[in-house]
Amino acid sequence: MNLDIITQPTLIVDVQRCKANIRKITEKAASQHFELRPHFKTHQSHQIGSWFRDEGVSKITVSSVGMASFFAMNDWDDITIAFPFNIRQIGTINDLLENVNLGLLAEDPDTIDFLGKHLTGEAGIWIKIDVGTHRTGVAPDNFPMIDHILERLIEYPKLNFRGFLGHAGHTYQTHTSQEVERITENSLTNMTMLKKKYLSSFPELKISLGDTPSVSMIDDFSNVDELRPGNFVFYDLQQEEIGSCSLDEIAIAMACPVVAVHPERNQWIIYGGGVHFAKDFLTFKDGKKCFGRFVRYEHGTWNTSEAVFNPFLISLSQEHGVVQCNDQTFHLCKPGDLSFWLPVHSCMTADIMGSYITNTGGKVDHYREHLWP
Amino acid sequence: MNLDIITQPTLIVDVQRCKANIRKITEKAASQHFELRPHFKTHQSHQIGSWFRDEGVSKITVSSVGMASFFAMNDWDDITIAFPFNIRQIGTINDLLENVNLGLLAEDPDTIDFLGKHLTGEAGIWIKIDVGTHRTGVAPDNFPMIDHILERLIEYPKLNFRGFLGHAGHTYQTHTSQEVERITENSLTNMTMLKKKYLSSFPELKISLGDTPSVSMIDDFSNVDELRPGNFVFYDLQQEEIGSCSLDEIAIAMACPVVAVHPERNQWIIYGGGVHFAKDFLTFKDGKKCFGRFVRYEHGTWNTSEAVFNPFLISLSQEHGVVQCNDQTFHLCKPGDLSFWLPVHSCMTADIMGSYITNTGGKVDHYREHLWP
Repeated sequence: MNLDIITQPTLIVDVQRCKANIRKITEKAASQHFELRPHFKTHQSHQIGSWFRDEGVSKITVSSVGMASFFAMNDWDDITIAFPFNIRQIGTINDLLENVNLGLLAEDPDTIDFLGKHLTGEAGIWIKIDVGTHRTGVAPDNFPMIDHILERLIEYPKLNFRGFLGHAGHTYQTHTSQEVERITENSLTNMTMLKKKYLSSFPELKISLGDTPSVSMIDDFSNVDELRPGNFVFYDLQQEEIGSCSLDEIAIAMACPVVAVHPERNQWIIYGGGVHFAKDFLTFKDGKKCFGRFVRYEHGTWNTSEAVFNPFLISLSQEHGVVQCNDQTFHLCKPGDLSFWLPVHSCMTADIMGSYITNTGGKVDHYREHLWP
Repeated sequence: MNLDIITQPTLIVDVQRCKANIRKITEKAASQHFELRPHFKTHQSHQIGSWFRDEGVSKITVSSVGMASFFAMNDWDDITIAFPFNIRQIGTINDLLENVNLGLLAEDPDTIDFLGKHLTGEAGIWIKIDVGTHRTGVAPDNFPMIDHILERLIEYPKLNFRGFLGHAGHTYQTHTSQEVERITENSLTNMTMLKKKYLSSFPELKISLGDTPSVSMIDDFSNVDELRPGNFVFYDLQQEEIGSCSLDEIAIAMACPVVAVHPERNQWIIYGGGVHFAKDFLTFKDGKKCFGRFVRYEHGTWNTSEAVFNPFLISLSQEHGVVQCNDQTFHLCKPGDLSFWLPVHSCMTADIMGSYITNTGGKVDHYREHLWP
């Protein structure tokens, strides 16, 4: 790719790294015999979706009704909306039912009643279980609530109970593989317990889990039916810190023009701010924040072999990024140069950017929510 | 407005509050005899821009070359790009020069040389002064650098020196009007000193400052020629905390469907996450983060008269918001209801949303950067 055409912050997908990440997890699914239903909220792209199709993926997860419609337009016809069912979007959900085998989440009996009464076709229903993140879901030992939901559910023939679904989002707060293992083991114990308890009444029920750290770091998924990781398609600095990936597996980087340099404090100013990177950050041991890490670009992609934590993005405002260098790294860029940055949280960066290019110069689409028609 | 049509996170502009904020500052400019060049990076909207035109504003500030092109399309013809000049965008800048009286920022002699050699028409040049934020700019006492820049500048007849421009971004970190006053006084002292020093050589030079806290809280701007505040058009919780505005002046709020409730921990889950609010937060004294504050919607707008800090948005993931209530407030919403939220940082929230509606049901446009044609 001719880098001269890049004049402003531009998000680049390394095609080879991205496809390798997809292949690593699809191969793991095949060898470990779990169904892979990747979460497409990370890339939100038809083109990157097609790379999953090339590896045999046919079932996907999304995080909003709008995103389900977007992928349905591109002939994805088996979609789980992994977000609490939103009563106010029943109209769009009914439209989707005409062409899509839809999975919806419920965590209370009233939602079941609403769906039973208002859905115009059949849908799969997962009971959302809180495996420890304490964001959404029913506690795994709250059997009265689970029984209550199931009693209502079986009254409506168009609601097909699929099983129990959890998301161990608290693995994102961990810093060692031991912590990820402990959380995953705990989730699996609870979900397996639920499966055993309800399997005689619902012989086809499945358990579904999904988070990138566990899928990346755990090898035994013999008790899981389905996994729904998303972030692994790109990975990021947060995942590298947890231990889910190596720096070299991170498959997106932001190209940003350097617009000013300040030798007196070893800093550069780049065109690239909160409206490009979003504002997730890592915190270094000395308390400094890191909003992105510098990589050199050479031979058609970025090179992570010099794994030093300098230069790094120490702060972001709306359009500016402030880069901290040291005496050894300050000379690496001057105004007018392009600098390249690994992002902290790739899902948020891709979403806020809303478009990509590949490292071979092609365009990559990204869903943009049209909040008002 | 019929709230039933809102099915997903939707950013609402209160027309009356927004126009009152615009009028308050345009009136202050008239009575204090400073030129107002409002920063349009906060609203990024042709329609809201037209409300400024109605109050007599004809000169504006933007934070990117793309945003300058966007407003130039809508016949704004006097635009300062308050961002370090980006060499890589010289092509677009030359296109803009054909129809726009453009102001550009420089802080080193090399940039001046580049502009002098590559600009195809005349442009105004501001020397960016670091008034204490330590992000960009020349230190106000670095006379050798200022002299050096000016020596180069006068060699190029198409570069018109306008004066010294500063942005006291560090007022955003303050918590009292005394701190804002102290910072503003310090900025004014430095800028006035520079004006006096160089006025004999450049009799038309001006000084330009601009940040919402000082413009909102300070009454005497007799030494300033131009002010460039932006945030005041909407204000937000950050500004309310600093003391720039009252809660009742905040002119945007996000409508979000409630999708689940958890009585055991007094929490609601709303459809509304980091991809809607962005992730700026306030930190309460007890260490808890606040990503937004609840307001009731009644009589066609939101009501801030019950100024309690509960419920509040305690965390955001990509699409979910977790709301902390207490025993008294938990009953205020149930799944399917719309909840309304004052944002922490309105510039970032408006940017990431990319569209608005008014509280009277009209659509409002917002610039969307097309990063790749």
